[in-house]
Amino acid sequence: MFTAMQSQFQRIDDSKGFQAFVIFVIVVSALSVGAHTYALPVWMENLLLLLDKGITVFFAVEIAIRFIASKGPKAFFSKGWNIFDTIIVIGSLLPVAGSTVFIARLLRIFRVLRLVSMVPELRMLVNALIKAIPRMGYIALLMFVIFYIYAAVGSMMFSEINPTLWRDVSISMLTLFRVATFEDWTDVMYETMAVHPLSWIYYLSFIFLTAFIFLNMMVGVVLEVMTQEHDNFVKENTDELDEPATKGEVLELKAQILELNKLLSEQLK
Amino acid sequence: MFTAMQSQFQRIDDSKGFQAFVIFVIVVSALSVGAHTYALPVWMENLLLLLDKGITVFFAVEIAIRFIASKGPKAFFSKGWNIFDTIIVIGSLLPVAGSTVFIARLLRIFRVLRLVSMVPELRMLVNALIKAIPRMGYIALLMFVIFYIYAAVGSMMFSEINPTLWRDVSISMLTLFRVATFEDWTDVMYETMAVHPLSWIYYLSFIFLTAFIFLNMMVGVVLEVMTQEHDNFVKENTDELDEPATKGEVLELKAQILELNKLLSEQLK
Amino acid sequence: MFTAMQSQFQRIDDSKGFQAFVIFVIVVSALSVGAHTYALPVWMENLLLLLDKGITVFFAVEIAIRFIASKGPKAFFSKGWNIFDTIIVIGSLLPVAGSTVFIARLLRIFRVLRLVSMVPELRMLVNALIKAIPRMGYIALLMFVIFYIYAAVGSMMFSEINPTLWRDVSISMLTLFRVATFEDWTDVMYETMAVHPLSWIYYLSFIFLTAFIFLNMMVGVVLEVMTQEHDNFVKENTDELDEPATKGEVLELKAQILELNKLLSEQLK
Amino acid sequence: MFTAMQSQFQRIDDSKGFQAFVIFVIVVSALSVGAHTYALPVWMENLLLLLDKGITVFFAVEIAIRFIASKGPKAFFSKGWNIFDTIIVIGSLLPVAGSTVFIARLLRIFRVLRLVSMVPELRMLVNALIKAIPRMGYIALLMFVIFYIYAAVGSMMFSEINPTLWRDVSISMLTLFRVATFEDWTDVMYETMAVHPLSWIYYLSFIFLTAFIFLNMMVGVVLEVMTQEHDNFVKENTDELDEPATKGEVLELKAQILELNKLLSEQLK
Repeated sequence: MFTAMQSQFQRIDDSKGFQAFVIFVIVVSALSVGAHTYALPVWMENLLLLLDKGITVFFAVEIAIRFIASKGPKAFFSKGWNIFDTIIVIGSLLPVAGSTVFIARLLRIFRVLRLVSMVPELRMLVNALIKAIPRMGYIALLMFVIFYIYAAVGSMMFSEINPTLWRDVSISMLTLFRVATFEDWTDVMYETMAVHPLSWIYYLSFIFLTAFIFLNMMVGVVLEVMTQEHDNFVKENTDELDEPATKGEVLELKAQILELNKLLSEQLK
Repeated sequence: MFTAMQSQFQRIDDSKGFQAFVIFVIVVSALSVGAHTYALPVWMENLLLLLDKGITVFFAVEIAIRFIASKGPKAFFSKGWNIFDTIIVIGSLLPVAGSTVFIARLLRIFRVLRLVSMVPELRMLVNALIKAIPRMGYIALLMFVIFYIYAAVGSMMFSEINPTLWRDVSISMLTLFRVATFEDWTDVMYETMAVHPLSWIYYLSFIFLTAFIFLNMMVGVVLEVMTQEHDNFVKENTDELDEPATKGEVLELKAQILELNKLLSEQLK
Repeated sequence: MFTAMQSQFQRIDDSKGFQAFVIFVIVVSALSVGAHTYALPVWMENLLLLLDKGITVFFAVEIAIRFIASKGPKAFFSKGWNIFDTIIVIGSLLPVAGSTVFIARLLRIFRVLRLVSMVPELRMLVNALIKAIPRMGYIALLMFVIFYIYAAVGSMMFSEINPTLWRDVSISMLTLFRVATFEDWTDVMYETMAVHPLSWIYYLSFIFLTAFIFLNMMVGVVLEVMTQEHDNFVKENTDELDEPATKGEVLELKAQILELNKLLSEQLK
Repeated sequence: MFTAMQSQFQRIDDSKGFQAFVIFVIVVSALSVGAHTYALPVWMENLLLLLDKGITVFFAVEIAIRFIASKGPKAFFSKGWNIFDTIIVIGSLLPVAGSTVFIARLLRIFRVLRLVSMVPELRMLVNALIKAIPRMGYIALLMFVIFYIYAAVGSMMFSEINPTLWRDVSISMLTLFRVATFEDWTDVMYETMAVHPLSWIYYLSFIFLTAFIFLNMMVGVVLEVMTQEHDNFVKENTDELDEPATKGEVLELKAQILELNKLLSEQLK
């Protein structure tokens, strides 16, 4: 009897209509989250709260259906996106049972992220982005080292000129990030140049280094992704027999023909 | 008799001279639109109004010629650029018969866009841009989700600090767009850091996420366009017989030679 | 006798030492141009003027040597860089004979550009840049059309809000260029949003359009340059016999072997 | 006996544990450098000073071990990274023997850079960046020439309008760098446009030139790196026999078969 229910749930879960309805509920949930930020009359606030509760229940039911439809908890949790969905749904369930309003609302906002797990194209995009993280890791580390060294030098030299910007190493790193985004960086520079006239070297070298590394990072990422995609594409699309003939194979052909030649020559003798 | 007129109109429409004259009129129309924005003496304003009317009539006549020269309304409206031209010309005709001056002038400005439909190179460029829209659609959706979540969190946490920037979710999205363009984003950040000292996490994570996704989007677009263009180029330029020989074909050769060998060996026996 | 002088001049012109000396004089000339912008004691100013005259004479002599060394005026002026050098040298000669000090100094500044014509690597870079201009032309035209339309709409709608920024179509285009570089663009937007609350659509659509077109332009340029360079490289580096064997050639091989087979079969009968 | 010690040191130097410990000490050293920028109680300052001395001694011992483990000074100093490490360690040793506190602290900051020489992935990244420097050299020179000419013209024309920004050629170059990063560049422009209404030509032409050259530089770098990497990859990964068969080889095959044909035909006669 259980498997009958299971297969029926699976049919519900796989149906286009059900998936479209889930996406619709997510969008409604997103709009409700947005509506909360406007000043609304009391009756509408109450309506929204009711709607929120309904959405919370719906999501819980939907996850339950998906869980039952799957082949056991192991199969269900082997998919990263299922874990992601479960955490978000449980997260938005918990605060219903008491706790502060603030965190409850914060958790409800993250339900919008379920749109990513429901729309296959967005899921593919996010998967691609996640794959790109490791190859960016070491570059981020290198950037961090440069930021750290410049921040340490900066807070050592400029902390007395403007403590708000250069008080300690962490505040200095924030200031340097600001310089790297070109945000009013000349104001920062002119201030320190009034005391240390040569401090433009500090800023220009920093800008060149970060821009240079960022540029190379971009090139590197483009390269890696390109060769990877190309290799995958080639592997998937070419039958072994359709690959170009190699020199080795032509050499074998030559050997065969030479043998033929020898045979014939012997016969002619 | 009608087809004689039709073929004559077609000859007019196709002639280089006529096309150059249409482009000339579009440029004059653009200059007249620009001239309206300057403070001009009354007689010149009147002259410009007269010129505008002349241009409107000319465009109507030109579209009529093109319409008659085409093989029926179906053939005419099957080309997107013809629809585009017709809408613009009708749009600038309508307000002449009454209605407010403001909208009339606004519609006249869009006549400049006819330059795009008249110059083939610009038409190709715009076609290429339109083709790029679908592959950017899902990335735009992903960006929108991220903006929306950050905006909801932002308006929840910062709306009391600065209502002008964080009042509701739509104003917050505008503020976040400003942060994404690095426009005085530190002013926005320092203001909220005075209340929530850790709010730099909010801004830095947002900047990293949007920059990271934008970077990957760019790479993705470059990749897709490149492989597409390359495939088209290869297909158009290579005759099947000029493709590199495949392993499969060399295998067939080997089989043929082996058969020969067998024949000869039999004969030798 | 003349050709003896000519060949001697040619030897001077081609010698590494002479070329290095010319580059040295150009650098000295650049430093002298820079030194003029500082407040200097009178004796030094006089020294610089003397140096300037010496450099002017040296450049005239150098061009004369190059001219005599070449095979007639036609051969000399067929090279774009020679015309470039001659114009700069004559330009810096003329003002010596009277005329205002301002223009004389301005023309002397452009002598620094001779560095580009003397260093082969810089010459190659500039040649590459010049080659890229035509393919950017139509994109620039498209950008101009978009700027013009937005500027006409902007000066129509916002000229009464802030005449300094939106007075007429040309000032509006400058303001839009500022918006495109993200330079305090929110200040411009907030000002007009106070009157027209929906004017953010105007700015955001403008930023998206220009950024989108710029992005595609970049991709296009990368693509064109790449395929071009690649094709040139392939053409220069591969002997026809080293190209991969084609399907057509393998088919001819098959035909030959089939013929052999037929011959043998006939013999066996 | 010495070689026994040497081989033992080599074993220490190569062990994963030792390397991990060195990285741990570098991170501690980095944290200690950062901690110095905060206002700390006296006992903690003293502790940090003690820690610093300990780290200095540890680094000296570590370099000594690496030196002894290597095959003589020549082998040791043939590796750039060893020279780099030695300079940093000696640099941080020297100030311990007197001299100002400021330089001592500055030199200690650079010890963080040892992280780059210890982590192989970072070392590879930095090596790649260093390789990219020469191909960027001439482009940097071209940029410098453009900056210099614009700065000379700018300080000639605008020095009386705002001496702070345009006093002399070096200050003008700094101002132009600011314009190139779009940092409040309109403020600079509006100021000079009040005196010279056409000076927007100066700024716009400068922005276009630098952006255009920068764009092409990026394309160039991408291209060079790509072709280089691709060539290396192809060379390393393909056996000669696996290369595609060439036209030349198929021609040889044809000749062999023709010869066969001739032999057979003769036999048939």
